[in-house]
Amino acid sequence: MRYIPAISRLIDEFSKLPGIGRKTAQRLAFYVVDASPDDAVGFAEAILDAKRKVHYCERCFNLTEETLCDICNDVKRDPRVMCVVESPRDLLAIENTKEFNGTYHVLHGAISPMEGIGPNEIKIRELILRLQNDQTSELIIATNPSIEGEATAMYISKLLKGTDIKVSRLAHGIPVGGDLEYADEVTLARALEGRRIL
Amino acid sequence: MRYIPAISRLIDEFSKLPGIGRKTAQRLAFYVVDASPDDAVGFAEAILDAKRKVHYCERCFNLTEETLCDICNDVKRDPRVMCVVESPRDLLAIENTKEFNGTYHVLHGAISPMEGIGPNEIKIRELILRLQNDQTSELIIATNPSIEGEATAMYISKLLKGTDIKVSRLAHGIPVGGDLEYADEVTLARALEGRRIL
Repeated sequence: MRYIPAISRLIDEFSKLPGIGRKTAQRLAFYVVDASPDDAVGFAEAILDAKRKVHYCERCFNLTEETLCDICNDVKRDPRVMCVVESPRDLLAIENTKEFNGTYHVLHGAISPMEGIGPNEIKIRELILRLQNDQTSELIIATNPSIEGEATAMYISKLLKGTDIKVSRLAHGIPVGGDLEYADEVTLARALEGRRIL
Repeated sequence: MRYIPAISRLIDEFSKLPGIGRKTAQRLAFYVVDASPDDAVGFAEAILDAKRKVHYCERCFNLTEETLCDICNDVKRDPRVMCVVESPRDLLAIENTKEFNGTYHVLHGAISPMEGIGPNEIKIRELILRLQNDQTSELIIATNPSIEGEATAMYISKLLKGTDIKVSRLAHGIPVGGDLEYADEVTLARALEGRRIL
């Protein structure tokens, strides 16, 4: 059974989204076809709008509709501590902890020789330039605990060796509420290594 | 942490889709923001296009971009057997078996007093009118094996009592490849009831 062209195309579009398989894409496409015309137009416009209005903050490369993002515009944030993340979603995850009141720098990726992503493909140069001109005294590197994230953290910390900026890395260990039994060996080894005296 | 308005709106739109929770909606919204402008426009246009071009077949209420759907236009389909389904997706599921060569009638729902959906809210009147004027001799009611689907099947079969049209219902039983142990009681009871002599 072939789909009619307009539905087939919509299924293809939904299938491109991350984590959306063919079956789910079909379900979503049929939902859109069944939705009211206003809802469909609202959905399409939200997509175009997000693409049109949202761009990078000139200072930290977080997403924003303005020149600077909400955080860079916020005078109550501590300019002495800066947290480096791979993506705006990682930034949001940290914001959601409500434990961090410094500024951010979004790299938009991590160094990955396998995928041909070198230091120049992500916002590292911009980070270094920024650090030369602002009051940051501590840099928390919160890249992912993956090979790429670790390589990026190493690269940045090497670049900053010899400067006055203290470089730190998020702690690794057992997730809160997690079960020792189910932790993988690497995580467990890191948890041991990073043990704290009570 | 509040999202910036354009992203927040896109997350809301994605959240309206069936089976898409808040977390997934966030992931999809950020994907769209990161996509190329062309991809975003292509996606938005596919939505508008599907909504604009796709409508119901005048005869069977399947989805189509023409006046009649592919199946109603196909002279090789047997007009003597008609299959009644709740939705275009159910029709596709039956087409995919490649075992049915008759025509269809899509009800676009099932009778559900709980949700205020009576016989007039779905395409039952259109079905009866159609049966008076065509050559259908067997009607296979393939509504879902839910309370609503069963009620709809009962309602239609009562309406056709006394006519020459043979009314049948899809068989219930253990799914092929399924495990007796894990079948629910109702399915198992139906499988027993519908047992076939070998």
